[in-house]
Amino acid sequence: MNFLDRLKLHLDTVGSHLCIGLDVDYDKIPQEFKRKNVSESIFAFSKVIVEATYDLCIGYKFNLSFYEGYGVNGLQGLNLTTSYIKQKYPDLLLFADSKKAEIGDSAVMFRKQIIDNLGFDCVMITPWFGYDSVRDLELSEDMGVSIYVHDSNKTASEIQDLELKNGKILYEYLTEKILKEWNTQNNLLIEVGATYPNQLRMVREIVGEDYPILTVGIGSQGGKINDLKGIFGKNDRRLIVCVSRRIIYPQMNDPDYPDAVRRSAEDIAQELLKISSVR
Amino acid sequence: MNFLDRLKLHLDTVGSHLCIGLDVDYDKIPQEFKRKNVSESIFAFSKVIVEATYDLCIGYKFNLSFYEGYGVNGLQGLNLTTSYIKQKYPDLLLFADSKKAEIGDSAVMFRKQIIDNLGFDCVMITPWFGYDSVRDLELSEDMGVSIYVHDSNKTASEIQDLELKNGKILYEYLTEKILKEWNTQNNLLIEVGATYPNQLRMVREIVGEDYPILTVGIGSQGGKINDLKGIFGKNDRRLIVCVSRRIIYPQMNDPDYPDAVRRSAEDIAQELLKISSVR
Repeated sequence: MNFLDRLKLHLDTVGSHLCIGLDVDYDKIPQEFKRKNVSESIFAFSKVIVEATYDLCIGYKFNLSFYEGYGVNGLQGLNLTTSYIKQKYPDLLLFADSKKAEIGDSAVMFRKQIIDNLGFDCVMITPWFGYDSVRDLELSEDMGVSIYVHDSNKTASEIQDLELKNGKILYEYLTEKILKEWNTQNNLLIEVGATYPNQLRMVREIVGEDYPILTVGIGSQGGKINDLKGIFGKNDRRLIVCVSRRIIYPQMNDPDYPDAVRRSAEDIAQELLKISSVR
Repeated sequence: MNFLDRLKLHLDTVGSHLCIGLDVDYDKIPQEFKRKNVSESIFAFSKVIVEATYDLCIGYKFNLSFYEGYGVNGLQGLNLTTSYIKQKYPDLLLFADSKKAEIGDSAVMFRKQIIDNLGFDCVMITPWFGYDSVRDLELSEDMGVSIYVHDSNKTASEIQDLELKNGKILYEYLTEKILKEWNTQNNLLIEVGATYPNQLRMVREIVGEDYPILTVGIGSQGGKINDLKGIFGKNDRRLIVCVSRRIIYPQMNDPDYPDAVRRSAEDIAQELLKISSVR
């Protein structure tokens, strides 16, 4: 089954839009989850989050920089975590938030690390180098690529919102190009930051009601759940909403940390379900 | 001293344009350099290349994907190599070819890995997310950022050569933006692929004679040294030319491997010196 169909099936059956972002920063891990070394601590903390939330979400997004920031130890912690989820909850989808893209032989090495070694289902890439970055990964159709079409950060507009000679805005042009030319295997997901609701609406218009869109930036970055109204698409189930810090660091001084994480995830999942049917 | 001044001083005093690309693929390492494990083998092979070439170049560019493709072992091999060079040849510049860019807290983690842990002097980033990716690294002025303004790969044109409403081509607009708005610390280097000689000439025109440009794509990717004519800038010393596979994998069956590597680097360095003064 190709990745987009896999994703749609998931969104329809799990009945949640939530993808939980694991931006695990070793320095922010509460003392009680610290273990004998950095990798064991990252794993122990990530496992607590997963056990508290696995039935509330469609999967997890890993911000690779947070793990890579701790070098070999961070990478070992990441490896332990993805292996654990793949083994215990094989249906959950794992997204590699790489902020990267590769070409040629390097793309094969990139895939080797993300898909073959770490077991991710979907790698998130920048479109800057064009279609080579998709094709050169040599992915099978059941593995996905998510493309940062319009990001959530403040200066994303500097390039992504430029007006082209043909009258289109760059992110619109790119969305159309992905749909018409790049998506030959039906495994390309489109990402738009929730901090840009107008662009999110425009992308929904371009891709149609049945195409899955992934959004980030709710919470700490300033995106509001209310702004997602009307862009959930077919069956109210074509939007994946990634939330990170608001879930994994709810109230650090809460005496029952896993429970606070679960409550925060439940609240957000419910809020999303409620808003998904509002037109 | 800010990074661009550091770089210019280097180009003037070393008298070489060459930056050697270490795209070390474990599977391509000749048997005689293989050690007891992957990280030791990567390090042993990289050390041979460095010892054969350190006096012929201004530094080394590391294609991170090749190391990351071997997971923890690859990362350990990379760490051993950069530490070795930093200790033995502290004047050589190390470039992290990341194909990535980060924002916010993640950018701090990205810097932590590349600059603080691995000891690189310059991190190469994609401009897709805008100025946030430069500012959020919170780099001191002596550390550099190289921006992929126009890449060497075939589909780089899909986005980078788009014509904007204001009549400019995207990579031209971006080059001007970097110079006027982003380069507040005088530490931003500009990269253009040698496979696009017209774009390379245009960027030289925009940045002026004294601004350093980094180019990649000579050799395996199809870029020709001859096409670099006229774009070396002030003192014929404002162009850094990265060459990888043509140097590190010269003729794999050569009985004296390090010598073949040195000869190949010498030939290219000489060819570059010769062409640098041709107008």
